[in-house]
Amino acid sequence: FMKRTQRIITITKLLSDNPNKIFPLTYFSTLLGSAKSSISEDLKIISSSFSESNLGFIKTSYGSGGGVKYIPHIDKKEALDKLQKTCELLKDNSRILGNGFVYTSDIMFDPRIIDSSAHIFASLFNEHDADLVVTLETKGIPVALLTARLLSLPLVVIRRESKISEGSTLSINYFSGTNQQAQKMSLSKRAVTAGTKAIVIDDFMRAGGSIRGIHEILEEFNVKVVATGVVIASTSPEKKKVNDFIPLTYLKNVDADNKITEIEPNLKCLESL
Amino acid sequence: FMKRTQRIITITKLLSDNPNKIFPLTYFSTLLGSAKSSISEDLKIISSSFSESNLGFIKTSYGSGGGVKYIPHIDKKEALDKLQKTCELLKDNSRILGNGFVYTSDIMFDPRIIDSSAHIFASLFNEHDADLVVTLETKGIPVALLTARLLSLPLVVIRRESKISEGSTLSINYFSGTNQQAQKMSLSKRAVTAGTKAIVIDDFMRAGGSIRGIHEILEEFNVKVVATGVVIASTSPEKKKVNDFIPLTYLKNVDADNKITEIEPNLKCLESL
Repeated sequence: FMKRTQRIITITKLLSDNPNKIFPLTYFSTLLGSAKSSISEDLKIISSSFSESNLGFIKTSYGSGGGVKYIPHIDKKEALDKLQKTCELLKDNSRILGNGFVYTSDIMFDPRIIDSSAHIFASLFNEHDADLVVTLETKGIPVALLTARLLSLPLVVIRRESKISEGSTLSINYFSGTNQQAQKMSLSKRAVTAGTKAIVIDDFMRAGGSIRGIHEILEEFNVKVVATGVVIASTSPEKKKVNDFIPLTYLKNVDADNKITEIEPNLKCLESL
Repeated sequence: FMKRTQRIITITKLLSDNPNKIFPLTYFSTLLGSAKSSISEDLKIISSSFSESNLGFIKTSYGSGGGVKYIPHIDKKEALDKLQKTCELLKDNSRILGNGFVYTSDIMFDPRIIDSSAHIFASLFNEHDADLVVTLETKGIPVALLTARLLSLPLVVIRRESKISEGSTLSINYFSGTNQQAQKMSLSKRAVTAGTKAIVIDDFMRAGGSIRGIHEILEEFNVKVVATGVVIASTSPEKKKVNDFIPLTYLKNVDADNKITEIEPNLKCLESL
């Protein structure tokens, strides 16, 4: 009894720590000194417990290259609950800056808060069979990194300036912000491979200039964007510079005079969970 | 039997997913519909399995504010193994750029690689009772974020330019790089609280100008640095601008002509694991 329980605890821990990583069954049988048949039985028990307790999925595939992996999944109810909590934090009127901006850095950089957004992106995009996650520095890096971690993918960060430590880079100019300021973004030629598929993640979208820039620079590298997610999308302007993107929340209004921020979860994106 | 096993799987998963987060025992007893005494027994089994299999520690505290948490810990042997693998990746001679720099961005941004460095930092600094993790944008953000995640702390990112969305900021000038270039770093006044304790994490240190700048800007905010960790420290120059810091690896030489990079794990930092 104890031996099985200890095996189950060890396997559950290692699978949970390494989402979407495939472990060959021989890995566990060697590590735990048990027959593959015992490991298979353990995995059945773990798998059914994960399903019953809404902890995500344990998927086993057989044959060469086969093995077991844990696929993270957040259900609709929990996702809504987490997004509502994030919106409550964002509504705090002390966040409204004099210029009408809302201070979000502490939330975007706090792994204890932003990991739930990453879980939603990972749940929505798990079946897209992407090769990499891409973001533009800086505030989108944490949520993009945590999404990449859950999908077991590398993260590629597009820089604003081309850095000496990036080797040769390709740069584009784009227009962003309310004032349509000209800006630059720059990607190392070593960072991506032609023909791969990318998930684009960012913290915030207003008109979509930055996201459009990311799509354009990836196109230059012949990288296909299979999904785009942003944590917060402003509802204005209504017309965005990109078509397909999934916002987790909508920022509807910031009333700097009366100190009221209207922001709410995007219920539509939760439907498919 | 199945009921206990399912409880154990659920608790193991939730603890693993939320390192250093305290769960009151009532949380699990409510979630799983079991008596607190059963949950206590489950935790004893989980705790001894974690210890026996080197999965980290399960710590239970009683009384008000009490509960159970999972403390990540990587042992010396595994830490050395992971650092050696990272060094092997870095030694790849195609990483040497024309200017003598080594391309590290793909490694620093890959959660599947850099999470092991974060585990080592978290294991080394878990007892420092810090309130926040601090880094300077950009390449140190992933390892700093993953360390913050393991320690259940917020991350604060010092920016190079003061951004309009950061509110009022404090900036300092510092000198960094081989050419002692004057540079600026900038921290939002909202980002930190006076009297708190910070762990500073960065990807790379040569002379230590940036790290010294981080220490100085934190001092301006009356934030105390309790530990500093860098993934790679160059052995030259021998004299650094900061005294107390822990490098996970030492970059000893980059021979651009013969395409040889000498880099090795810092064995001394592993001794206390």
